[in-house]
Amino acid sequence: AGPVEVDLGEAEDFLRLFHTEHPGAGDLQARWSEVRVAVARTGTYTHTPEELRFGAKVAWRNSSRCIGRLYWNNLQVRDHRTLYTPAAVHEALVEHLRLGTNGGAIRPTVTVLPPLTPDGRGIRVRNEQLVRYAGWRDPEGAVLGDPGQAGFTAMARGLGWRGGTGGQFDVLPLVIDVPGYQPWVAEVPPDAVLEVRITHPELPWFADLGMRWHAVPVISNMLLGIGGLRYPAPFNGWYMGTEIGARNFSDEDRYNLIPEVAKLLGLDTSREDTLWRDRALLELNRAVLHSFAEAGVTITDHHTESRRFLLHLRKEERAGRIVPSDWSWIVPPMSGGITPVYHRYYDEADLMPNYLPDPRTGAADQGCPFGYGA
Amino acid sequence: AGPVEVDLGEAEDFLRLFHTEHPGAGDLQARWSEVRVAVARTGTYTHTPEELRFGAKVAWRNSSRCIGRLYWNNLQVRDHRTLYTPAAVHEALVEHLRLGTNGGAIRPTVTVLPPLTPDGRGIRVRNEQLVRYAGWRDPEGAVLGDPGQAGFTAMARGLGWRGGTGGQFDVLPLVIDVPGYQPWVAEVPPDAVLEVRITHPELPWFADLGMRWHAVPVISNMLLGIGGLRYPAPFNGWYMGTEIGARNFSDEDRYNLIPEVAKLLGLDTSREDTLWRDRALLELNRAVLHSFAEAGVTITDHHTESRRFLLHLRKEERAGRIVPSDWSWIVPPMSGGITPVYHRYYDEADLMPNYLPDPRTGAADQGCPFGYGA
Ligand code: HEM
Ligand code: HEM
Repeated sequence: AGPVEVDLGEAEDFLRLFHTEHPGAGDLQARWSEVRVAVARTGTYTHTPEELRFGAKVAWRNSSRCIGRLYWNNLQVRDHRTLYTPAAVHEALVEHLRLGTNGGAIRPTVTVLPPLTPDGRGIRVRNEQLVRYAGWRDPEGAVLGDPGQAGFTAMARGLGWRGGTGGQFDVLPLVIDVPGYQPWVAEVPPDAVLEVRITHPELPWFADLGMRWHAVPVISNMLLGIGGLRYPAPFNGWYMGTEIGARNFSDEDRYNLIPEVAKLLGLDTSREDTLWRDRALLELNRAVLHSFAEAGVTITDHHTESRRFLLHLRKEERAGRIVPSDWSWIVPPMSGGITPVYHRYYDEADLMPNYLPDPRTGAADQGCPFGYGA
Repeated sequence: AGPVEVDLGEAEDFLRLFHTEHPGAGDLQARWSEVRVAVARTGTYTHTPEELRFGAKVAWRNSSRCIGRLYWNNLQVRDHRTLYTPAAVHEALVEHLRLGTNGGAIRPTVTVLPPLTPDGRGIRVRNEQLVRYAGWRDPEGAVLGDPGQAGFTAMARGLGWRGGTGGQFDVLPLVIDVPGYQPWVAEVPPDAVLEVRITHPELPWFADLGMRWHAVPVISNMLLGIGGLRYPAPFNGWYMGTEIGARNFSDEDRYNLIPEVAKLLGLDTSREDTLWRDRALLELNRAVLHSFAEAGVTITDHHTESRRFLLHLRKEERAGRIVPSDWSWIVPPMSGGITPVYHRYYDEADLMPNYLPDPRTGAADQGCPFGYGA
């Protein structure tokens, strides 16, 4: 076997797609020979800025698990393919947080870092998201903070991180691997992290739970795959409330608040058929939506987002495209049956470009098969 | 091509399975030659009562969409393979209702009718379930009763049915096709239909909605497939509350009660993020569980049934069997994320024996791809 090369079939498919959707983009054949020559010489090639922007957007359009795709064409694409030091990557990610957060008027944004080499080496952001809270495991195994981050937290400590207060909401440092450097561990400046305190529209005691959450989910452990290349490329949208209220706050292996909230609500938890779990879940989710709205931070509820997704399906159909979708991810984790996305089948297909799991992320880091709890 | 015959491969697989799980059942090879001879002579063969009983139970065990499989081995199997008149079938189905209902202590039961001929002809119960409520469509297209039954109701009228009051809860007649007979249309005697009035544990006005539901879901439009044979075979379990509260009462194309209940609850329906839909859904489901319990009719909530299903998975694993399961059907239509069945993958396989869609049922009769609203 010769040296490892970019997959030329994937490259050709992508160039074809780019030229089909950009009829004015020039001569496909000329570009294609250019790419073949580059790959023959170097094993890889370089996307034009237009190709990159298009690829990052279409990768979102093709994300079968994402209900939020209506705005795929409005993605802000930040081209940072020339960063080669950990400090520069760190700075670019912190800037991503500021730009994506935008004072609360959240902008869907992706930061494209240098691609992996054809044999799969390159930059790796080890965080699952740019902002996550530490999980502090005590000797008995109990966790304070986010149990979903206990492994990452221990790893960061092992790499020398001394930050955090040992509390419920310590923002984790970024851990960045750049070939040729030691793992880079550095705090995110607090003023780059917008957070929302969780209160309830009617129940004053809710604030005393002391819950908060970060405003922006920036997924940082997937790879953007375009035309045979693989880019580390943290991206963000805004939250759908259930991701926080029905997953991060409610999963038993996350903040696990359902029992406590049910108790504070005074519900009868001695039998399941009072549906006390469902009631606590409801109030948690109302609190999340209320608090984000009060704080002026973009968020959507699962009913609105479901309707938008159906609109997206119709728009894409009119454009002659299928919308590959994964039912079990599209249907929200609460009140599934009363959202219109429940009552239909979807096309299933793995189209490229796409955001892909990073093979360097061990299965152990992956957590729940259904939902990162983004 | 010769005359149509039972699928011998399927027959052999079934006999093998039967003998594997019944080591004392005698000589597999002898039975297998017997079956081959019968099929060669007649195109088909006859199951022994033990084979039939086992087949009907294992068909439940293999039903990937069913969360209620823990008790698969306790299925009551009624062997009615000798009924050949519409009146006799009608009587057997009414008796099924009485036995399955059992005064409220519901018994999972299947009534096995004569198998189809190898070329697919035979008895057909046209009802989706033995008990369903009529849907009366007025000239403007609005439906009183169950809109999901408007087509069936019109068909029954066309066949001469003159029953019903034009109200919200008119039990539909059975419509039974037996080859050689006119379609048989006949009422289910009211005393064979146990119904539950829906009240709420705390909200007295709930009773004024005038809602009710039948105690037992007897699915009657699937075929029991065993060893190459196909039996019309209505079966029942007990209800999981969400089937009524989150589907039959809540689906927009069924009773569609969410908006009305939200209004009566005094919720702010001017914006989605109050989660008024979710609150109305919750109270509907509490009412269903409460009312069945008060009436002494077996029912389970989705939390309990989810835990039972996980127990079933463990038991089957210990027995060395896989549990083929369809995630989108197993996860309940409300509060999915807080039930333990959400957070895992399942084996997917189409094992036989099984309960299968009846190819004679047109797609038009099938309704929602996710859930009959059983
Ligand atoms: C604009 C607002 C957005 C909303 C409301 C939204 C909503 C969602 C939700 C609810 C999920 C499921 C998450 C889970 O269950 O853990 C999801 C998954 C996903 N979204 Fe979006 N999204 C948005 C923007 C984006 C953007 C900008 C991208 C990429 C450019 C994206 C790509 C994805 C991908 C790749 C997944 C699957 C993640 C995985 O496999 O873990 N989304 N989205
Ligand atoms: C004992 C209590 C039972 C419970 C609580 C239960 C629960 C359920 C539920 C919730 C569904 C999904 C229905 C929907 O979404 O529309 C289902 C589907 C199903 N169940 Fe069960 N079940 C029970 C007994 C049975 C029995 C006795 C059989 C057969 C002998 C059976 C066979 C099936 C089949 C074949 C389906 C799929 C139906 C279809 O494709 O529409 N179940 N069950």
